[in-house]
Amino acid sequence: MASLTVPAEVPSVAEDCEQLRAAFKGWGTNEKLIISILGHRNAAQRKLIQQIYAETFGEDLLKELDRELTNDFEKLVVVWTLDPSERDAYLAKEATKRWTKSNFVLVEIACTRSPKELVLAREAYHARYKKSLEEDVAYHTTGEHRKLLVPLVSSYRYGGDEVDLRLAKAEAKILHEKISDKAYSDDEVIRILATRSKAQINATLNHYKDEYEEDILKQLEEGDEFVGLLRATIKGLVYPEHYFVEVLRDAINRRGTEEDHLTRVIATRAEVDMKTIADEYQKRDSIPLGRAIAKDTRGDYENMLLALLGQDED
Amino acid sequence: MASLTVPAEVPSVAEDCEQLRAAFKGWGTNEKLIISILGHRNAAQRKLIQQIYAETFGEDLLKELDRELTNDFEKLVVVWTLDPSERDAYLAKEATKRWTKSNFVLVEIACTRSPKELVLAREAYHARYKKSLEEDVAYHTTGEHRKLLVPLVSSYRYGGDEVDLRLAKAEAKILHEKISDKAYSDDEVIRILATRSKAQINATLNHYKDEYEEDILKQLEEGDEFVGLLRATIKGLVYPEHYFVEVLRDAINRRGTEEDHLTRVIATRAEVDMKTIADEYQKRDSIPLGRAIAKDTRGDYENMLLALLGQDED
Repeated sequence: MASLTVPAEVPSVAEDCEQLRAAFKGWGTNEKLIISILGHRNAAQRKLIQQIYAETFGEDLLKELDRELTNDFEKLVVVWTLDPSERDAYLAKEATKRWTKSNFVLVEIACTRSPKELVLAREAYHARYKKSLEEDVAYHTTGEHRKLLVPLVSSYRYGGDEVDLRLAKAEAKILHEKISDKAYSDDEVIRILATRSKAQINATLNHYKDEYEEDILKQLEEGDEFVGLLRATIKGLVYPEHYFVEVLRDAINRRGTEEDHLTRVIATRAEVDMKTIADEYQKRDSIPLGRAIAKDTRGDYENMLLALLGQDED
Repeated sequence: MASLTVPAEVPSVAEDCEQLRAAFKGWGTNEKLIISILGHRNAAQRKLIQQIYAETFGEDLLKELDRELTNDFEKLVVVWTLDPSERDAYLAKEATKRWTKSNFVLVEIACTRSPKELVLAREAYHARYKKSLEEDVAYHTTGEHRKLLVPLVSSYRYGGDEVDLRLAKAEAKILHEKISDKAYSDDEVIRILATRSKAQINATLNHYKDEYEEDILKQLEEGDEFVGLLRATIKGLVYPEHYFVEVLRDAINRRGTEEDHLTRVIATRAEVDMKTIADEYQKRDSIPLGRAIAKDTRGDYENMLLALLGQDED
């Protein structure tokens, strides 16, 4: 379930644009007004606002936001306002530009989106960067990281629910053998995780647990960065809410708040499953996610995060 | 340039359907009539004919063709009548079911189609087979074959013309080193061929020829089946017409005609670039392609091939 709230009666697009323009042009920027509008419009509405804003004022709304806002608040509003495919393309590009510790962002985009959403993100990547996502990922990685990441970002998995139980059994056996031998980057492990449908991988892991009485995620708890990526792959594919709870807990609880991760998760999930993620978070940490975020963030950034969580007064 | 010819005044779809129905239902099947209709309609027209046929007679046109026609003629008419994405999905599935000598059909589909067409073929594969193309390819291959074929069929290359000449130079150097060392399945060789845009690979190979005074295709002439796949990859990406001429020459000239390959090339290219391919063929073999085909095939199969080449009287 999404956490985004859209008012029952939405003002006209023209009115939203006028208000945003007023928020930028007044004496000082009116952040509260910006949050009350953009923090409560869905993707289709935001797209229309961008279009009409450009037609009315001859200016790019994203550039205006960039100019008028600052720091974490700016990043959050811009990333949120982007069309979801464009946003994924942007986040993936940023990840390929950074050090290996950003590789898990690529895994996140490749595994937690629907197969079709990933294809649309790749299409947006072409349009924006005149390159393919997979060529940038392949170019910036080597060895076992490349071996895992390139097929993950290139995948166009079957999206249906049909499951082949005989195959699940056979592939659970392969996975169990390889993981028990710590052959984490074995061809077969990567083939199974990078090409099978999410439903099929789920069936395989269920059989894994039943037959071998071991939890593959537990087996992948200790290890190097590559093992962490494998773990993120499996969680992202089969237990996306748990995956996002883990990222949020890391971002909020550990040595200062990691704003980039907080921003990315809230902006990409608010319209998808953020309500479910927040419920899981509370179950895991015994504190509502909104309160945890309010404790660790401030000002307009905090207000926008809470708006996207559906926890402001608007 | 396409070779397909569509009459200036096309009968109504309803009329085409009536005529096809008559061709099936008379005393014996009227193959000439079927060729005169289906052999002269473009993809959009054939799609509409299939739809209206099903609505009018409550029967699937493809199943009727399957029932009424036989052998190579049947295969050609059915494969031709399919929507291009469905056809690619079907041809790819057939290739994954066969022995390794069909691997080059996968290379052909992955490399000679536009990036977007390949994505549409993968989408059609999902709908038709409830699986992804890459999972079937990965499952049926091993070792260096898998290492090349999976990224090729999973690619969604950038389709624009922009070229990075500095990169072309650097990657020509890598390719030249690896190919000269006969390290054909090296990670870097596969990365470059499987992820870069066609325009970029073309620039890289131009630099290769200029700087090293060697032709990579010549270097790949002698070798095992894998080297042949690499060669097909490069030809399919950068010189598709030459690639298809080579397949046609093999199919027509060598020890009896290989009808499957002849059928596939004519059916998939008639609406795309078959006229150009036929011109190249004549340049290479000093005999018009239509005459070479007429010499080696017979009856309705021959007539349908010539119709798709634009060389019948209709």
